[in-house]
Amino acid sequence: MPVCVFEWRYGSREMKEVWDQKKRLKYMALVEYALLRALKEVGLVPPDVHPDALLQAVEEVSLEEVQALEKELGHDIMAFVEALASKVDEKTAKYIHLGATSYDIVDTVWALQFRDALNIIYKDLKDIIKKMIDLALEYKHVPMLGRTHGQWAIPITVGFKFANYVYEMARAYERLKDVERRVVKLKMSGAVGTMAAWGEKGLEIEKKVSEILKMKPHAITTQVAPRDSFAELLASLSILSSVMDRFALEVRELSRPEISEIIEGVSKKQVGSSTMPHKANPVTAEKISGLAKVSRSLVLGELENIPLWHERDLTNSSSERILIPHAFLTIDEQLKSMKKLLEKLVINIENIKRNLERAGCINLAERIMIYLTLNKGLARNRAHQLIMDAIRSYGSIEKALKVGHDLGKYLSHQELETLCNPSTYLGSYDKLIDRAIQYAKRVIGEQQ
Amino acid sequence: MPVCVFEWRYGSREMKEVWDQKKRLKYMALVEYALLRALKEVGLVPPDVHPDALLQAVEEVSLEEVQALEKELGHDIMAFVEALASKVDEKTAKYIHLGATSYDIVDTVWALQFRDALNIIYKDLKDIIKKMIDLALEYKHVPMLGRTHGQWAIPITVGFKFANYVYEMARAYERLKDVERRVVKLKMSGAVGTMAAWGEKGLEIEKKVSEILKMKPHAITTQVAPRDSFAELLASLSILSSVMDRFALEVRELSRPEISEIIEGVSKKQVGSSTMPHKANPVTAEKISGLAKVSRSLVLGELENIPLWHERDLTNSSSERILIPHAFLTIDEQLKSMKKLLEKLVINIENIKRNLERAGCINLAERIMIYLTLNKGLARNRAHQLIMDAIRSYGSIEKALKVGHDLGKYLSHQELETLCNPSTYLGSYDKLIDRAIQYAKRVIGEQQ
Amino acid sequence: MPVCVFEWRYGSREMKEVWDQKKRLKYMALVEYALLRALKEVGLVPPDVHPDALLQAVEEVSLEEVQALEKELGHDIMAFVEALASKVDEKTAKYIHLGATSYDIVDTVWALQFRDALNIIYKDLKDIIKKMIDLALEYKHVPMLGRTHGQWAIPITVGFKFANYVYEMARAYERLKDVERRVVKLKMSGAVGTMAAWGEKGLEIEKKVSEILKMKPHAITTQVAPRDSFAELLASLSILSSVMDRFALEVRELSRPEISEIIEGVSKKQVGSSTMPHKANPVTAEKISGLAKVSRSLVLGELENIPLWHERDLTNSSSERILIPHAFLTIDEQLKSMKKLLEKLVINIENIKRNLERAGCINLAERIMIYLTLNKGLARNRAHQLIMDAIRSYGSIEKALKVGHDLGKYLSHQELETLCNPSTYLGSYDKLIDRAIQYAKRVIGEQQ
Amino acid sequence: MPVCVFEWRYGSREMKEVWDQKKRLKYMALVEYALLRALKEVGLVPPDVHPDALLQAVEEVSLEEVQALEKELGHDIMAFVEALASKVDEKTAKYIHLGATSYDIVDTVWALQFRDALNIIYKDLKDIIKKMIDLALEYKHVPMLGRTHGQWAIPITVGFKFANYVYEMARAYERLKDVERRVVKLKMSGAVGTMAAWGEKGLEIEKKVSEILKMKPHAITTQVAPRDSFAELLASLSILSSVMDRFALEVRELSRPEISEIIEGVSKKQVGSSTMPHKANPVTAEKISGLAKVSRSLVLGELENIPLWHERDLTNSSSERILIPHAFLTIDEQLKSMKKLLEKLVINIENIKRNLERAGCINLAERIMIYLTLNKGLARNRAHQLIMDAIRSYGSIEKALKVGHDLGKYLSHQELETLCNPSTYLGSYDKLIDRAIQYAKRVIGEQQ
Repeated sequence: MPVCVFEWRYGSREMKEVWDQKKRLKYMALVEYALLRALKEVGLVPPDVHPDALLQAVEEVSLEEVQALEKELGHDIMAFVEALASKVDEKTAKYIHLGATSYDIVDTVWALQFRDALNIIYKDLKDIIKKMIDLALEYKHVPMLGRTHGQWAIPITVGFKFANYVYEMARAYERLKDVERRVVKLKMSGAVGTMAAWGEKGLEIEKKVSEILKMKPHAITTQVAPRDSFAELLASLSILSSVMDRFALEVRELSRPEISEIIEGVSKKQVGSSTMPHKANPVTAEKISGLAKVSRSLVLGELENIPLWHERDLTNSSSERILIPHAFLTIDEQLKSMKKLLEKLVINIENIKRNLERAGCINLAERIMIYLTLNKGLARNRAHQLIMDAIRSYGSIEKALKVGHDLGKYLSHQELETLCNPSTYLGSYDKLIDRAIQYAKRVIGEQQ
Repeated sequence: MPVCVFEWRYGSREMKEVWDQKKRLKYMALVEYALLRALKEVGLVPPDVHPDALLQAVEEVSLEEVQALEKELGHDIMAFVEALASKVDEKTAKYIHLGATSYDIVDTVWALQFRDALNIIYKDLKDIIKKMIDLALEYKHVPMLGRTHGQWAIPITVGFKFANYVYEMARAYERLKDVERRVVKLKMSGAVGTMAAWGEKGLEIEKKVSEILKMKPHAITTQVAPRDSFAELLASLSILSSVMDRFALEVRELSRPEISEIIEGVSKKQVGSSTMPHKANPVTAEKISGLAKVSRSLVLGELENIPLWHERDLTNSSSERILIPHAFLTIDEQLKSMKKLLEKLVINIENIKRNLERAGCINLAERIMIYLTLNKGLARNRAHQLIMDAIRSYGSIEKALKVGHDLGKYLSHQELETLCNPSTYLGSYDKLIDRAIQYAKRVIGEQQ
Repeated sequence: MPVCVFEWRYGSREMKEVWDQKKRLKYMALVEYALLRALKEVGLVPPDVHPDALLQAVEEVSLEEVQALEKELGHDIMAFVEALASKVDEKTAKYIHLGATSYDIVDTVWALQFRDALNIIYKDLKDIIKKMIDLALEYKHVPMLGRTHGQWAIPITVGFKFANYVYEMARAYERLKDVERRVVKLKMSGAVGTMAAWGEKGLEIEKKVSEILKMKPHAITTQVAPRDSFAELLASLSILSSVMDRFALEVRELSRPEISEIIEGVSKKQVGSSTMPHKANPVTAEKISGLAKVSRSLVLGELENIPLWHERDLTNSSSERILIPHAFLTIDEQLKSMKKLLEKLVINIENIKRNLERAGCINLAERIMIYLTLNKGLARNRAHQLIMDAIRSYGSIEKALKVGHDLGKYLSHQELETLCNPSTYLGSYDKLIDRAIQYAKRVIGEQQ
Repeated sequence: MPVCVFEWRYGSREMKEVWDQKKRLKYMALVEYALLRALKEVGLVPPDVHPDALLQAVEEVSLEEVQALEKELGHDIMAFVEALASKVDEKTAKYIHLGATSYDIVDTVWALQFRDALNIIYKDLKDIIKKMIDLALEYKHVPMLGRTHGQWAIPITVGFKFANYVYEMARAYERLKDVERRVVKLKMSGAVGTMAAWGEKGLEIEKKVSEILKMKPHAITTQVAPRDSFAELLASLSILSSVMDRFALEVRELSRPEISEIIEGVSKKQVGSSTMPHKANPVTAEKISGLAKVSRSLVLGELENIPLWHERDLTNSSSERILIPHAFLTIDEQLKSMKKLLEKLVINIENIKRNLERAGCINLAERIMIYLTLNKGLARNRAHQLIMDAIRSYGSIEKALKVGHDLGKYLSHQELETLCNPSTYLGSYDKLIDRAIQYAKRVIGEQQ
C-alpha cells in the first residue's frame, strides 16, 4: 500500500538505497560495531567480545523483527539493539551499545547517510557541470538575444548563457562542500554530551570510532549533534534545487513556440497531452521546477529544529524522519531529470538567429547611446532621451532617422548599420566564459 | 525498499488507504465512469456503451500494468485510460475519457480524496473535542496556576485550560468546513476550461457528473482547478497542526518533573531512554510537536503553486504529488497521537494544588492591586508600584507587611489572607467554559 | 533615517494610516475608553469618572512621551496608560485600564486594525474585480490562443481569460470574509482569560465593550486571543497575493515581444532601462510578482506563533510587530499596483489574432481527435496516435494529409478546414464567463 | 508617519545606518565614483573628468530630489544619476554611469552593505562568544542537571552548557565567513553580463573597480549577480537567529519559578506586567525567540528569488527591498538583545544545587546500569529492565533496595550512594569545554 511517490515514481535506485529502511539497519550496525571495537581497544570490555560479529548479525535482522520489538519497547534504537544482540554470542551481546545514547547512533548514521548521499549528488553535479561546459564551449560564439524582464536586451551568446549556469551550479557544489565540513561529523558523546558513561576513556573511544568511520567528531555536543548545519544542509540543497529551477525555467520559456530557441525535445512515442495530441510539452523541465517548490518548503521545518530544549528534546526526531530523506530524494530526482533534460535539449540555431534579426537594432540602443556619448559628445542622459523618443515615436531607430528625427543630427544611416551588428557587440563574453569554466573546473576538481 | 516513514511507521490505515496508489486507480475509474455515464445520458455516445463496466474493470488493472504503459507513453493518465480500456468491450473502450483532459480526472480525484480525508479528520477532531469537553467539565472547578511568560500568573482552573483547547480545536474544525466549500469542487471542463470538446453539451455533462459524484463544480476553470484553495487547505491543516502543537507543548512543559501537573503517562513496558532507564519522556507529545514543523513547511510549496502560467503549467503536478499526501498523512499521525495522548494523560491534582500553594500570594498581586484601587482609593499605577516594590524588596507581600512596608498603610494582614485565596479569584471561568463548549458543540454538531 | 521601504516608497496613505504609530495610540485610547465606559455603566467605578476624556486626551499624547516613559518602565502599554492618565482628571486617571491586561488592549487594537485594513482591501478588491468583469465582457467573444505548459492549446477568448481571474479574485474576497468572522474579535478577559479582576461583572463588561466597539468577543481566551486565525489571516492575504502574482505573471509573459498580446503599457516619460533605452519593461507586473514572494514568506512566522506557552508567552509580540503590518502593507502595494496595471493594460487584438493564425490547425488537434472518434468510428486512443504521428512526422496535419498520411483515410481536406476554425471551437465559454461573473457579483455584493 | 517597528523601536544605530536611505545614496555614489575612475584610468573617458567630484556631490543630493526625479522618470537609479550629474561639472556629468547597467550599481551596493553589516555582526558575535567563554570557564566545574525531553537526565556542568552555545555560535560565525566569500562580490559587467558597452576594456575596468572597492568580482554574471548566495546569506542569518533562539529558550525555561536556575534578571523599575505587578518576565529572551520566527520566514522569499528569467527579471527588486534590510535589522536586534541578556543573566547556584539534589539518584540510573554491566556481569538490557522496574514500581532506586527489589542482588546501599554522586559522573566535560573554546577562538581569531 504505497502512499509516497518516491516508492514508485521518483528517486534513483542509488539514492533510495541510502534512505532505505533495511539499509539503515546496516548503517546502525556499522556504528555499533565501531563503538564496540573502540570499547574493546581501550579495554572497557573484555578481549573475547567480537565486534565483527555485529556486521554479520545485521544481515539476519529483519525489519519486521525490529518493528515488533519496537512495538513492545516503544523505542526504536533499543529494539534494534535487542534484535542485534539476539544474533550474536552472549558476551558480545552484553556489551553492545555500552555507554552510548540512542543519538550517538542516530546522529552518526545521519552523518554517514549525508556523506553517501552527498557523494551521489557530487557525481551528478559533476556530470551536469561538465555537460554544461561542453555546451558553453560548443556554442561559445553563437550570438543570441539577451533577455531582461522578458524583453529583448543586448546580445549574448548561447555559450555565455550556459557559462552562467556552469558558474551557478559550481557555486552550489562549493557550497555543499562547505556545509559538509560542518555536518558530516561524528557524534559519540553519550546521554548529555559529557561521555560520562565511559569514565576517563570517552575522548579515546571517540577518537577510535572517528578513525574507524573516517569522520571527525563535533568539538562538543548535547545529547545530539547541533541542528544548525542540518538546516544549513537542507538550505544548501534547496539553493541547488532553485538553481536547477532557474535552468528549467529558462528551457520552459525558450521552448515556447513563439520563441523556440532552446527546447526540451520529445521522443516520438511520448504522449504530450491526453486531449491535445500535438503538444510537445517541456515536462521534464516542468518537473524540475515543480520539485524545487518542495525543496524550498522543507528548509523551514529544519530551521525550526535548531532551538531544541536544553540538552535536547525529541521534536526533531519525527520531523527529520520526513524532512531529511524527502529533501535528498527530491534533489536526486531533480538531478537525474537535469541530466535527462540536457540530453534531450535541442538548440535551434536557426530560430536563435531569426529572433535576433527580428529584434533588429532595437536591442542595440545601448550601444548607440554609448557611441553618441563617447564619439559625438552627447551627455549620456541626453543620448538616452533621444533614442527613447525615437523608438517610442517611430517604432524603430531606422524609421526615426528616415523621417528626420533629431537623432539624425548625430547619427548617419551607415553608422547605424555598423552599430546594429550584434556579433560585434558581445564585449568580453569569451574571456568571461573561460573564467567561469576555469572556476568550475577548480571547484569540482578539488574532489579528485 | 521503503524510503518514506509513512510506509512503515506513521499514518493510520484509513488515511493511508485514501492516498494508496492502488486506491487511486479506483478514484480515477469512478470519475471516468461518471463522465462516460454523463456522455451516454446526454446522447454524445451510443446507448450500448457500458459505463458500469469501468467500475469492474478497474479491479483487474494492476499498478505494474499502468506503470509499464506509462513508461511507454510518458503520460500517467493516458496509461491508466489505456489499461482500463483494455479490460472492457471495444465500444465502451472507444469512448472512455472522451473530450476530457487529464486534469478533469486528476483534479476531481483530488477533490474526492480531500472529501474522504477530511471526513476522517472530522471524525478524529470530534473525538478529540468531545474528550476535551469531558476533561473541561470534569476538572471545571479545580484551581491551578495560570502561567504567562512561563511565570506564575493568577489562577485558572484545569477545566478552563481544557476549554481553551476545546475552543481552538473547534475553530480548526470550522475553518476546515469553510475551506471544504471552496476546494471540494468538481473540475470537468476540458483542455482549457471551455468544455469545447463536448460542443453545446458541456454544461449538461458537467451537471450530470456533478450529480453522480455529489460534488458541485467550479464556476469556471482553466485546464485545472484554481490552486488558491489547495493552498488554503494545506494552510488550514497546518493551523490545526499548530494548535495540536500548542496542546502538546502544554503537556511537555507541565510534564517537567519540577512542575508535574499534567503528564504524559507511560506504560510499564515502554523504554524511556536507551541509556537513562528512569526517564518517562513525553514522547507522544513530542511527536505531535515535531510533526507540526513538517506541516507548517508544506504550506509554502502549495502557495507557490497558485501562480501557474496562463491556462496552466505542469509545475504543480510533481510538487503536489509530494505535498498533498504528506500533508494529510502528517495531520493524521498527529490526530491519532492526540487521541493516544489524551488517553494516557495523567492529571496530578496533588501537584497542581501544591504548586498553587507554593506560589502563595505572589500570583494574586493583581487582585490586591485592584482591591487597593477600588476599596482604598489608590490610583491604579500607585498601587502597582507599591506592590512591585514590596515583592522586589522582600520577596513576598506577607513579608513586606511584616517589616512595615508602606503597603501596610492600606492593607491589613487579614485582608491579605482573604485576598490570597485563589478559589475566590476565578472570575467568570465557569460561564466562559460553558460558552466555549457550547460553541464547540454547535460547530461539530453541524455535521450530524 | 528611514530604513523600511514602506516609509518612502511602497504603501498607500490610507493603509499606512492604519499602521501608523501615532494612529495606534488612538486605537488604544478607543479601547481604554470603551472599557472605562463599560466599567462605569456596570457600576464598578464611580459615576464622576469621565471616559470621554480619554478620547480627547490622546490627541495630546505624543509618541516621544510614550517612548520616554517606556524606556523608564520597560512596558509599552503601561507607558501609554501613564501618559494618557497624566492628561485627564485625577479620578478618571485612577480608573483607566482597571482590571485589564495589556493584551486586552493590544489584541483588541489588532482586531480594530484588521477590520479597518480589510475594509481598504475589500474596496480595492471590488474595484479590481469590477474592472476585470468589464474586460471579461468587453472581450468576451474575441478568440485567443489557450496556452498550457507554455505551448499552444485549443482556443479560449480574451474574456474567458479575464473571467478566470474574476473568479479567483472573488474567491480571495470570500475567503477573507470567512477569516474576518474568526479574527476580528474582541478580547476583553483579563490576565489569564477568566475576567477575575472584575468579579462577577466580567461578562457584563465584555458585552458593553462589545457593543461600543461593534465587535463580537471570543468565546474564551487565555491572556491573548488565539493566534490560529492570525495565521489564517496572513495565509489568506498571501493567497490573494499569489492570485495577483498569477495575473501579473500572465501579463509579464504575454508582454514578451515574441507574443505581445496583453501588454503592460508605459508612459512616454518613464525610463525603461538605464542602459537599454528601448525597453518597455512590465515593471508594475514584476513588482506585483516580487511582492508576492514577501507575502508568502510572512505566513510562516505567524504559523509559528500559534503554539504559545500555557496562558501565553511573549514571543508573538516582537514577531507580530513586524509580520502583521508588513503583510498588510505588502498586499496594499500589490492591490494599488494591480489597479494601475489594469489601467495601463494594452490588449493587442491584432497580435492575438495573428498568433492564433500562426498556430494554424495544430492547436485544434483535440477537436479532430474527437471528430474522428464520434463521427468516423475510431477509438479515441487510435485517433490520438494517428494525429500525433501526423504532426510529429510532417509538422502539420495539413501537410500530412497532402503527402498521403493514413489520417487521410478518415479526414478530407474540407473537413479539416471546417474543423480548423477556432471561433467554432469555444465550447460553453460564454455561459461559463457569465457564471463566473454572477458568482463574483454575489460575493462582492454581500458587502453592500 | 512611521509604520515599521525598526524606525522607532528595534535595531541599533550602527546597523540602521547601513540600511538608511540617505546612506544608500553614498554607497551608490561610491560605486559610480569607482567606475568613473576606472573608465578614466583605462582611457575610455577624457582625462579632465573628475571622479572625486561625485563623492562630494552626493553630500548635496537629497532624498526628496531623487524621489521627485524618480516620479518623473519611473526609474530609481537613473533618477539618482541625474541628481548626481546636476551637481558636478558638465564633462564629469556626461560620463557618469557610462556603460553601466543599474544593477552594476545596485548589486555592488548590496555587496558593500553586506560587508559593512556583516562586520557589525562579527563584532557582536565576538563579544557574545567571548562573554559565553567567560561563563563557560567561570562555571566550568559547577554540576547541574542535564535535561532531555524536559526531564532530568545525567548531570552536566553550568560551564558545559555554555560551552555548547560557544560552539554553536562560533559555527554560525564560521558559516557567515563562508557565505561572505560567495556573496560579497563585485558585479560590474553591464546590461547582460558581457561588458559589451566597454568594448575590449571590460575586464580591465572591472579589475580597477575591484581594486578601488577592495572586492573580488563574480566570475560571470547575467544582468545581475546570481541570487543563490543572497538566499544562502539570509539562510545563514536565520540559522544564527535560531541558535540565539535556542539560547533564549534555555533561559526562558530555566527562568520558570519552579526551576529558577539561570534567570533573566530585571531592573527594579521595569514593569513586569500591567496587571500582575509581581511578574519578572524574561522579556528580552522572549524577544529574541520571537524575532527568530521572523528571521526564519524571510529565507523563503529569497529562495524564490533564485530562479529569475533569462538574463534577469525584476521580481527580485521589490522583494529584496523588504527582505534584505529587515533580515539584517532583525538579526541586529537579536544580537544586541543577546548582549543585554547576557549582562542581566543571573546564575542561581543554590537553585542549581537544590534541583540536582531533588533529582537524587534517579537521574544517575544510566551510571548504575553501566556499573552493573561492567562490574556485575549483567547484560546491558537486563540491567536496564531491572532499574526501570525499580523506579517505576517504587519511585526511587533507594526505596526499591529497601523493600527488597531484585536489584538488591547486584547492588548494595553503599555502592548506590557512591554511584549517586553527580560530581564524579561528569565524564570528559572539562576537556570538551576546552575543545569547544579552542575551536571558537580559532574561528573568531581568523578575523584579527
